[in-house]
Amino acid sequence: MITSTSNVTPGQCLAMRLERQAPICVGLDPVVDRLPDSIDGADEVAAIERFSRGVIDAVVGTAPCVKVQAACFERYGSPGVAAMERVINAAVESDLIVILDAKRGDIGISASHYAAGAAATGAHWITLNGYLGEDGVIPFLDAGLGVFVLVRTSNPSGDEIQSPCCGDGTVAGLVGSMVGRLGESRRGANGLSSVGAVVGATKPEAAAELRKTMPDAPFLLPGYGAQGGGADGVRAALDQRGGGVLVTASRSIIHAFVDRPGDWRRCVKDAAATFAEEIGGLVAGQDH
Amino acid sequence: MITSTSNVTPGQCLAMRLERQAPICVGLDPVVDRLPDSIDGADEVAAIERFSRGVIDAVVGTAPCVKVQAACFERYGSPGVAAMERVINAAVESDLIVILDAKRGDIGISASHYAAGAAATGAHWITLNGYLGEDGVIPFLDAGLGVFVLVRTSNPSGDEIQSPCCGDGTVAGLVGSMVGRLGESRRGANGLSSVGAVVGATKPEAAAELRKTMPDAPFLLPGYGAQGGGADGVRAALDQRGGGVLVTASRSIIHAFVDRPGDWRRCVKDAAATFAEEIGGLVAGQDH
Repeated sequence: MITSTSNVTPGQCLAMRLERQAPICVGLDPVVDRLPDSIDGADEVAAIERFSRGVIDAVVGTAPCVKVQAACFERYGSPGVAAMERVINAAVESDLIVILDAKRGDIGISASHYAAGAAATGAHWITLNGYLGEDGVIPFLDAGLGVFVLVRTSNPSGDEIQSPCCGDGTVAGLVGSMVGRLGESRRGANGLSSVGAVVGATKPEAAAELRKTMPDAPFLLPGYGAQGGGADGVRAALDQRGGGVLVTASRSIIHAFVDRPGDWRRCVKDAAATFAEEIGGLVAGQDH
Repeated sequence: MITSTSNVTPGQCLAMRLERQAPICVGLDPVVDRLPDSIDGADEVAAIERFSRGVIDAVVGTAPCVKVQAACFERYGSPGVAAMERVINAAVESDLIVILDAKRGDIGISASHYAAGAAATGAHWITLNGYLGEDGVIPFLDAGLGVFVLVRTSNPSGDEIQSPCCGDGTVAGLVGSMVGRLGESRRGANGLSSVGAVVGATKPEAAAELRKTMPDAPFLLPGYGAQGGGADGVRAALDQRGGGVLVTASRSIIHAFVDRPGDWRRCVKDAAATFAEEIGGLVAGQDH
């Protein structure tokens, strides 16, 4: 089980893991209308929990990391949140690095509250929205969490706010500069910082530009595959050591059983293995 | 109890209420180290719930609206979220307009999940982060909620991201333009839209500039009083009808009992009444 100590930062912990495994992350975005036939969907919360636990069991050993989409559980209110806590615990107990994909963004004591709640789940990292500036980021770092700040997202309407020119770069560049600055004093012994960035794999040019101001930040890359991101999107995001990325995929992995015969967990495991092989071939320095 | 129908939008509902009451909002940000002596803090979740219910009882009839800070409850995980659901329900049953201050920001189906969860609590409005563009806003409107999008926040480090020049205005102006555009087709019969903006009362110049692109948006104004915002910050945010604002205060109201003798609920009620009188004098068109 991964435990934080004062000597091992989230960034260092992630880097150590990526020396052994391909830099992929499986997104747990369970929805009740896409469950294997063998899972009864009558009790929706129980069903998404059972499915999530099955995915975790299937990808352990193949993926180093899972990303838990808070929204899928919060839609069911407090019983859903309780299920999410159990799912995160199961992932941590299975020795997976866990990113809580909560995209929180508040300041001061409210940010400290969110950070305390997230840390208490056992998650190692959390996704954050940086629009409020560093006031919305530092409390999470102080709670011992690693953070991935939304910098350049892969959705169409993100362009309206993120891509306009601003100073020497773009609005996303402003957020990226903040991430880079906060990361300078939060690098692990192996160079990877605990202040990461979410950058869509669909934006290679933006990723390459953003990497300049965030040399040591882990980049969490959504949008590969289904949303049109490809190998060039991953390569553009690599750091000077040829790593520093974590490519995340959700539906293409967790719904790999749809329209396929046989055990659903096997389909998920196979999809994760294919994804790991594909992404592993794009990065340097791994022994996998 | 306020109920939504297909004919009454959240904006219209808010406007109708503000014809009768001063445009103030009491922020429910309960913390266990600031409770009245009469509330036992041993069970922290039970204590903040009891305190929140007491504040609701105290401000009903004086304030039209409460804002529930999700972080204060989420820090306690699923039991905290369950308490928050009960607190929101109590506020709705007390005929208060309820803003869920959750600052969510996700897209597509994840945004729909968050929206479903928020609507199920009974809250009428939710605060959102607009960095992901309209993809992160529309699903909440589709769920029948009114939204307050973070445009210009009152915290010091918000300046780094929100105030740089961008096109004809600032980054905050980009988000404001999106709010204004989304609001055009979502105005109630009385002109107030269901797409609002969070604008710090500490930024009068910014508020006046932003109002131009959001003529019909309700402005939720934090930062009045304790954080240095004053009457000029409120006046700058008024719409052409001399209204369209909702001034929110948390600690100055809910902690009004600190160092004061007597019943704590009476102190809270008196503080809310003073605040209502002060703010009511700054806006036009109310019968209070």
